[in-house]
Amino acid sequence: MRGFARRQSVERAIAWLDAQLQPLDPEPVPLRMAARRVLAESITSNVDVPGFDRATMDGYALAAESTEGATSYNRLPLTVIGDSLPGRPFTHHVGAGQAVRIMTGAPMPQGCDAVLPAEWVDSTEATSTLEASRYRARASRVVAVAAVSPGKHVGRRGEDVTQGTTLFPHGRLLRPQDLGVLSSIGVDQVQVYRRPRVRLVVTGNELLPAGSRPHGHCIVDANGPMLAALVERDGGLVDFPSLVLDEHNAILDSLYTDADVVIVSGGSSVGVEDLAPTLLATHGELAVHGIAMRPSSPTGFGRLEHRLVFLLPGNPVSCLCAYDFFSGRAIRALGGLSKAWPYHSIIAKLARKISSPIGRLDYARVRLVDGAVEPIAVGGASILSSTTRADGFVIVPADSEGFAPGSEVEVWLYA
Amino acid sequence: MRGFARRQSVERAIAWLDAQLQPLDPEPVPLRMAARRVLAESITSNVDVPGFDRATMDGYALAAESTEGATSYNRLPLTVIGDSLPGRPFTHHVGAGQAVRIMTGAPMPQGCDAVLPAEWVDSTEATSTLEASRYRARASRVVAVAAVSPGKHVGRRGEDVTQGTTLFPHGRLLRPQDLGVLSSIGVDQVQVYRRPRVRLVVTGNELLPAGSRPHGHCIVDANGPMLAALVERDGGLVDFPSLVLDEHNAILDSLYTDADVVIVSGGSSVGVEDLAPTLLATHGELAVHGIAMRPSSPTGFGRLEHRLVFLLPGNPVSCLCAYDFFSGRAIRALGGLSKAWPYHSIIAKLARKISSPIGRLDYARVRLVDGAVEPIAVGGASILSSTTRADGFVIVPADSEGFAPGSEVEVWLYA
Repeated sequence: MRGFARRQSVERAIAWLDAQLQPLDPEPVPLRMAARRVLAESITSNVDVPGFDRATMDGYALAAESTEGATSYNRLPLTVIGDSLPGRPFTHHVGAGQAVRIMTGAPMPQGCDAVLPAEWVDSTEATSTLEASRYRARASRVVAVAAVSPGKHVGRRGEDVTQGTTLFPHGRLLRPQDLGVLSSIGVDQVQVYRRPRVRLVVTGNELLPAGSRPHGHCIVDANGPMLAALVERDGGLVDFPSLVLDEHNAILDSLYTDADVVIVSGGSSVGVEDLAPTLLATHGELAVHGIAMRPSSPTGFGRLEHRLVFLLPGNPVSCLCAYDFFSGRAIRALGGLSKAWPYHSIIAKLARKISSPIGRLDYARVRLVDGAVEPIAVGGASILSSTTRADGFVIVPADSEGFAPGSEVEVWLYA
Repeated sequence: MRGFARRQSVERAIAWLDAQLQPLDPEPVPLRMAARRVLAESITSNVDVPGFDRATMDGYALAAESTEGATSYNRLPLTVIGDSLPGRPFTHHVGAGQAVRIMTGAPMPQGCDAVLPAEWVDSTEATSTLEASRYRARASRVVAVAAVSPGKHVGRRGEDVTQGTTLFPHGRLLRPQDLGVLSSIGVDQVQVYRRPRVRLVVTGNELLPAGSRPHGHCIVDANGPMLAALVERDGGLVDFPSLVLDEHNAILDSLYTDADVVIVSGGSSVGVEDLAPTLLATHGELAVHGIAMRPSSPTGFGRLEHRLVFLLPGNPVSCLCAYDFFSGRAIRALGGLSKAWPYHSIIAKLARKISSPIGRLDYARVRLVDGAVEPIAVGGASILSSTTRADGFVIVPADSEGFAPGSEVEVWLYA
């Protein structure tokens, strides 16, 4: 029941944290599971895509010189000696005055360097019986009514991906189309940063587990379900076995886990009932405790052996805010993702002032009403519903006394 | 090997599509799985949260009038008769001149209407033996050095959520903090819109399944892995049994599925080898075929019984673009999500011009270089790597001839 002797600035707290954050070791995942994962290797293609020249238009593959001088007044006959379809190439050589019907994407036959589009061909002339028998009934006579230049409507081998090209650097957050390109070069698994395992330790003797009906002087755990969803949003794997009693041994036991990150909710302040900070300081390192921000001032974090341990306030708004400032940042970074907030921001005008003392960062929940930013008047950090009524939040930095009505502020939108 | 007689505008194609889009039927999900799902019911609380008055500060619960007139010059003695902890309330009545040590979040004892913060109390005076015995060794004497007014540092029953309040309308996309609030009111499952089941039908006789090494005149399927990731991004459940041959029966069979949406990739144009449009027109409804856009012009869609069927071009850039314009929109809407693109946009200046003929919408891939928008010069819709080199895309509407260098354009950022 005493205050913090001195609160650390948010910047210094984050500086300590950032110094701990290296992406975890890589693990292989099948391509099918790799969306939104982060590459722990760079990927260089050892093939050309496509692996052959191909038509980029439906028409007739031929030697461009077979069409030289063709116009609608100078119609040049062509003997069509076969078809090239995707996956079913025409395998003979195509000579002068000959052509092969070709579909978009199909391989260019030998002897061909251009595709004459179907609309530049008059195909109404009769089939030549002689040639039809020679090419197994596929031969026919058509007429070119325009010329093409060499290379026209041909996609070159390697035009999409050239062998030896580095397609993705390590650290790449894989998009859907990246998976397409990786598949096209024959990749079936990739090395990505392992997702951090995150143990949730939700303490509070007054808490009932999620799914209970609140009764008597008990309240139902709100932080557990919220933190689980936040951790998963940020790419972590949640380990949340059960609520933990506010007792020395129960909390200490729960800190020793094979998780990479432990998040303790509740009992993070400096009262005699706040066990977690003392336990962490005794058995590991309590690097930060007490932060110059509101809410979330009674937040701490440090290490216990290989684990990062976060001590978040039990008040749910404080818990959310401290998670977003510190734990979420760490979970994203351990998985190779950007440390930045996963929220987008907009600039909008304040409808009413936001005040905040110098020396403390404030996290003000706001609503957007007709495009204007309305701070939500709330009692305190225990009112979680204020964050569900809010569209987002505005940060007042420690060196600011707040913002006057009409000022343009950055609103981070909850997602 | 002929063109479309007439291409539909993107607007008209979307108008047909939107008329088909109702969220699917609801399904119950446990709260733990409900993040990013969309409520198919509105949620009204039938409890107060908290269900009792509680302290919002560590200190001493008492009747405010017991501190009336207290200052550091007028120290008023208080008899501390017990403790109230979260989940462990003090169950006796607190009379005039008495106080109960109380922790943040703990229930207010009977007879108390305020909390005197710990720092306004001098607790160095000795315990009174008489009172200690009466209250089982817990009684002690402290001194108030300041007064509090009634209600001070007390969170009222229902201050977070009042019984009868509608917390979430149906259609709400559930955020992490929403799960916290739902848990706090005793909800353990919610009705959300069912996720659409999406069958992927990837056709192309030249295709090898993802995970193969490209060889000969075959290429490895890029669209399947890309579409699977896109569908999952948009909340769909992917059903992708295997590649499908470009054959009448194989394609027809694959359309009859219990999925809500079928996406066919490849063979969507008007050539004789393009089987899917004819099959859909014969067995169902081909509502849209041929769209005035580039790429993706040979896109079609319609219905087969209860299913929405999308015929997307096999060229991977066209496939991506057509998915984003049409299929993704439908999958999101069926799951109750916003039809809008899941991409954020920024406004930036064009470094080089983008040209586009009137009457056709263009989807131009761009990179951001030092904040300026660089169109990516690419051969065509077969160059999927152009979408991995791109940071996003710019849309040139059908009624525009494009944008001059230096114009400000909206860039949709790939995510």
